[in-house]
Amino acid sequence: MGEPRVCDIGEREVIRRIRRRLPAPPDWLRTPIGDDAAVVRPPRNRDEVITTDAMVEGIHFDRSYVSPAAIGAKALAVNLSDLAAMGAEPRLALLSLILPADTTVNDLDSLVDGMLEMAGRHGVTLAGGNVSRSPGPLVVDVTAIGSVKARDVLLRRGARPGDAIYVSGAVGAARAGLLSLRGAQGTAGQAPGDGLEELRARFLVPEPRVRLGLLLARNRVASACMDLSDGLADAVRGVTAAGRVGAIIEAEALPIPAAARRVFEAAALDTIDAALEGGEDYELLFTVPRRRRRALAAVLARVPGVACAHIGHVTAARRIVLRREGVERALPAGYSHFTG
Amino acid sequence: MGEPRVCDIGEREVIRRIRRRLPAPPDWLRTPIGDDAAVVRPPRNRDEVITTDAMVEGIHFDRSYVSPAAIGAKALAVNLSDLAAMGAEPRLALLSLILPADTTVNDLDSLVDGMLEMAGRHGVTLAGGNVSRSPGPLVVDVTAIGSVKARDVLLRRGARPGDAIYVSGAVGAARAGLLSLRGAQGTAGQAPGDGLEELRARFLVPEPRVRLGLLLARNRVASACMDLSDGLADAVRGVTAAGRVGAIIEAEALPIPAAARRVFEAAALDTIDAALEGGEDYELLFTVPRRRRRALAAVLARVPGVACAHIGHVTAARRIVLRREGVERALPAGYSHFTG
Repeated sequence: MGEPRVCDIGEREVIRRIRRRLPAPPDWLRTPIGDDAAVVRPPRNRDEVITTDAMVEGIHFDRSYVSPAAIGAKALAVNLSDLAAMGAEPRLALLSLILPADTTVNDLDSLVDGMLEMAGRHGVTLAGGNVSRSPGPLVVDVTAIGSVKARDVLLRRGARPGDAIYVSGAVGAARAGLLSLRGAQGTAGQAPGDGLEELRARFLVPEPRVRLGLLLARNRVASACMDLSDGLADAVRGVTAAGRVGAIIEAEALPIPAAARRVFEAAALDTIDAALEGGEDYELLFTVPRRRRRALAAVLARVPGVACAHIGHVTAARRIVLRREGVERALPAGYSHFTG
Repeated sequence: MGEPRVCDIGEREVIRRIRRRLPAPPDWLRTPIGDDAAVVRPPRNRDEVITTDAMVEGIHFDRSYVSPAAIGAKALAVNLSDLAAMGAEPRLALLSLILPADTTVNDLDSLVDGMLEMAGRHGVTLAGGNVSRSPGPLVVDVTAIGSVKARDVLLRRGARPGDAIYVSGAVGAARAGLLSLRGAQGTAGQAPGDGLEELRARFLVPEPRVRLGLLLARNRVASACMDLSDGLADAVRGVTAAGRVGAIIEAEALPIPAAARRVFEAAALDTIDAALEGGEDYELLFTVPRRRRRALAAVLARVPGVACAHIGHVTAARRIVLRREGVERALPAGYSHFTG
């Protein structure tokens, strides 16, 4: 017996189950899901921002400690984070779901519900998609589309010497959360509390900084912006390379949560390096010209839940320097899903 | 030693190799590939048509007899076929590539070149994407976006009793081509010639009926349209269900190539059923009101390479009937990648 699996109900019924979970479509979605493609009326006087990112079982998540709801929510969140980094308002998403035949129908429902909860919170319509069978891992591939006024768009390039460098939220939290989850799987399980749940939550379902990105863009606060999908070091590298500038990062200013520091220490990792290299934080790194710092303060007052730390500044010299206890050295390399 | 593989060069270099192969971007693409997302200026006074479809190794293709170039070309073609079925002009695509670590760099290049060749032929810009590692199959997931005037869009619904039913190109060709490829892999290899190469080509790299779809839409010829990704029987079912109508299909009118008939006979399959159930033809099924048949002739004259066969008509009675040598019976079920 056992629970019903997707191979028992077939592709059509899988699609039917997903459709049944969708809220009523907005009027700009001109076709209901189920035609060959979605027909969408674009917003007026806006550019479109389009991104795609996949989550692959065994690479990005492990089903033994990541719930289907978290997989679905995160698969959308990482795409919304890319839109946030461009200052775009998210609008719609397409879901390409590649399912092992033994996926249970309950897990399918939970995955979709997790994604739809994240979508609802950010005003995103699931406008279409595709279901395939997988002979191997579960793959959740999402395309997200948002819109932005052409003159407001945030790019990686644009940072100028003297601009202050900020990062939202916490860095290293997702990596520490993952370490904690993995530790809890092994024999050396850690006691709950002490902020570990918060770290784990940051890894499991990151909160894309949609509203922050939108406000930075609309108020012309940021000269450059990028998200931290591959870690803070990678984002600093990305923004400085695109702008043909350098940076000095102050190690002491990095917003590394105390609980993450304890996790890194327990794992015999250098706290600063671990936080800089840790991927999957999905925070925003952005640079702010001196004349826009007052405007930044006004923006930050409008996103009370999201602290932004001033972690360094942009330099004309094209080196990336980490200043730590008075000593300057090169920034460690970023994180790579691919070779890592 | 051996050839270099993608795990030897890393994610960044994979992306760099892909970017180097791209032609110069059009001016409506406002960011070069490499930022967090693509920024696109939408066309004026058009609706957007958006679709996503994945090709999964071991489900949709077998690398032992499908070349990387064919995989790349087909992954885009199946999406362009969905846009064609809506009457949309294709504009851009995003590529999500999930690569086994042992994929050779040569195979990566060939896959991308195959896709870009298909893209170039249909005026499609590869505007962005994502590369992930796969612990299992190669997955090529494409999102394609096109545009259409709101009043021109072709939907599955809209067929009315009395409308003629047409199908483009050949049916059963892809399935026969696949059987032939599989046969050639076994000991019972078939001799080349006799149209087998053409069948195999139809399976390996289907030609999406982009221009036909566009002309049917612009000239308001079709009352309903759908592509044959899951076979002719499935498309007839889709269009009749959406329109709340029925259909009579004439078996003798089905455009089944002689070479495909021979392949089906050699495999002891019923020719008509095999052609009706065979998926992956990526032709268009469309219905034409009596008053638009002259307009259809004008459209067909403008796509000289694409024959369209009149295979039946729409009925008010909501049954789907196959008429064969004077005998009427129910249409066989369609094809499913998922349970099949």
